[in-house]
Amino acid sequence: MTTLAEATPTEARKRIREGKWTKPTSGVSSGFTQANLVVLPKESAFEFLLFCHRNPKACPVLDVTEPGVFAPAAAAPDADLRTDIPGYRIYRNGVLDDERIDIMDLWWDDMVGFLIGCSFTFEQALIRNDIPIRNIEEQCNVPMYITNRRCVQAGKFDGPLVVSMRPMQEKDVVRAVQVTSRFPSVHGSPVHIGNPDSIGIRDLDKPDFGDKVPVKEGEVPVFWACGVTPQAVAMNSRPEIMITHAPGHMFITDLKDEQFSVL
Amino acid sequence: MTTLAEATPTEARKRIREGKWTKPTSGVSSGFTQANLVVLPKESAFEFLLFCHRNPKACPVLDVTEPGVFAPAAAAPDADLRTDIPGYRIYRNGVLDDERIDIMDLWWDDMVGFLIGCSFTFEQALIRNDIPIRNIEEQCNVPMYITNRRCVQAGKFDGPLVVSMRPMQEKDVVRAVQVTSRFPSVHGSPVHIGNPDSIGIRDLDKPDFGDKVPVKEGEVPVFWACGVTPQAVAMNSRPEIMITHAPGHMFITDLKDEQFSVL
Repeated sequence: MTTLAEATPTEARKRIREGKWTKPTSGVSSGFTQANLVVLPKESAFEFLLFCHRNPKACPVLDVTEPGVFAPAAAAPDADLRTDIPGYRIYRNGVLDDERIDIMDLWWDDMVGFLIGCSFTFEQALIRNDIPIRNIEEQCNVPMYITNRRCVQAGKFDGPLVVSMRPMQEKDVVRAVQVTSRFPSVHGSPVHIGNPDSIGIRDLDKPDFGDKVPVKEGEVPVFWACGVTPQAVAMNSRPEIMITHAPGHMFITDLKDEQFSVL
Repeated sequence: MTTLAEATPTEARKRIREGKWTKPTSGVSSGFTQANLVVLPKESAFEFLLFCHRNPKACPVLDVTEPGVFAPAAAAPDADLRTDIPGYRIYRNGVLDDERIDIMDLWWDDMVGFLIGCSFTFEQALIRNDIPIRNIEEQCNVPMYITNRRCVQAGKFDGPLVVSMRPMQEKDVVRAVQVTSRFPSVHGSPVHIGNPDSIGIRDLDKPDFGDKVPVKEGEVPVFWACGVTPQAVAMNSRPEIMITHAPGHMFITDLKDEQFSVL
C-alpha cells in the first residue's frame, strides 16, 4: 500500500502509530476530516479554549480532551493523540525544541489536547464545485501571511491573525463564499477578498509560511483565517511546554467532512 | 416610558441598573440579542466552557468574561453583569438560595460570566417569515421538557437535554428548519420534529418548565435545544455557588440579531 487514500481512519491511524507512515497526510483517508493539534497543560487550557471561542474563524475547535485523557471522544474515540500523528513538534518557552514521531513520555496527567479544524475540508468542497485550488495544482503548501488584524485577546493569548490565500477567477468568488460559509467548523467563509494591502500584506510572493503560488492574469486573491494562528499565538505567549503536529502531518478523525456543513 | 422596546441597549441597561425596570425583558430593545447568564468560579470555568462546546445547540456561548471581569467585552463592553439584569438567582450546592436585583457583593475575583444565546432571536426570525409562535400568541412562557437524550459530558457537568416546543402547521416545518439553521449561535436548527415519545416526552400538556400551549389539529410539534439545559446541568453538579438570571429576565447585548446569521 503506497497511499492511504482508501484506508479507513482506524487503519490509517494504525499505520501511523506503527511508524509505517511518517509523511504528510494530504489525501489520506479521503473524505474524512483532518485536524490540527495543540497540546497545553491544564493551567493554560481555559484561556486557550476562550481564545479559540473568541476567534472561531481562525480557531475552529473540533474536539478537546479532558486533562490527561489522550483519546478524543468526539473525533475518534479509539485513537491515541500521543502516537497517531506522523510528526509532532515540541515547543519549550515558545521555541522549537524537538521533533518526534510520538509523545508518549510527554502526555502528563494535566495535558489537554485541542483538535482544530483545517482547510483540507473546505478545499475538497471547492473542488467538488469545480473551483480549482492552486496549491493543490502546484503540489505545494498553501501560502500563509501574517496580517495587520489582531485576534481578540484572551488572557495571555494574543497576536495577529494569520491567513491562507487561494487565487481564483473572478467568476468563482461568489460561489467560493457560499461553499465555504457552509463549513464554519473548518474556518468557514473568507475573511477578505481582493487587495492584499488592506489587511497588511505587502507582497503576495513573500508568504510568511508555506510556499508562494502564481496569481494569474484576472485572478482575485481570496483569504481565509488559518489554523496556524492559534499555534503562532500560543507560541508568542511562551508557555513552558506546548506540543503541536508537524506542518502537514495532521490527525485523521473518524468524522466525515460533510458532517460539518451547516446547510 | 412604559416599555423599553425602542430603547437602545445602553439605555435599557441603565434603567435596569437603576432599579427602574425589574420585569421580564421580552420585547426590550427590539432587534438586539438577549442572553442567558451563568456565573461560576474559575475552578469550574474550563469544564463548563468545555460542556458548552460539546453541546453547542443547547449551550451556544455568545461571550465569556475573564475571571473577575464583569464587563462582557464582545457582547456589551460598557455593561456590568453584576447590575444590568433585572433579576438574578443564587444557587448554593445546587439549591435556589436567594433572588436579587444585583449581585455586587458576589462577583469575587475569580468569578467567570457566561452569556448564552436565547431563543428570542430565532423566534423573531420565524415571525419575519410569517411562521407564528404559539407562546407569543398566547402571551405565556414557551413549554420546556426534559428529554431522554443525554448531553455530552464534560467533567462534572452531565445531564439530559432540555428542549422547548413550538407547534406549527405542516406547511411551515421545512421553512422553520431553514430559517433557524441560519442562527447556530442561538440554538440553531430543531433537534426533533414530530412524535414527542421518540425523545422521551410522554405528555405535551405537562411541560417540565414553562407553560403548556395548545397544539391545534394538523399541527406538528417542533423541538429546539433549550438554554435551560446548561443551568439544569450546572445545578445537578451542585457547585458551591452558581448565579443565573431569573427566568425571562435576560441580559440585553449590543449585538443585533441579524449579526448571528451564517448565511
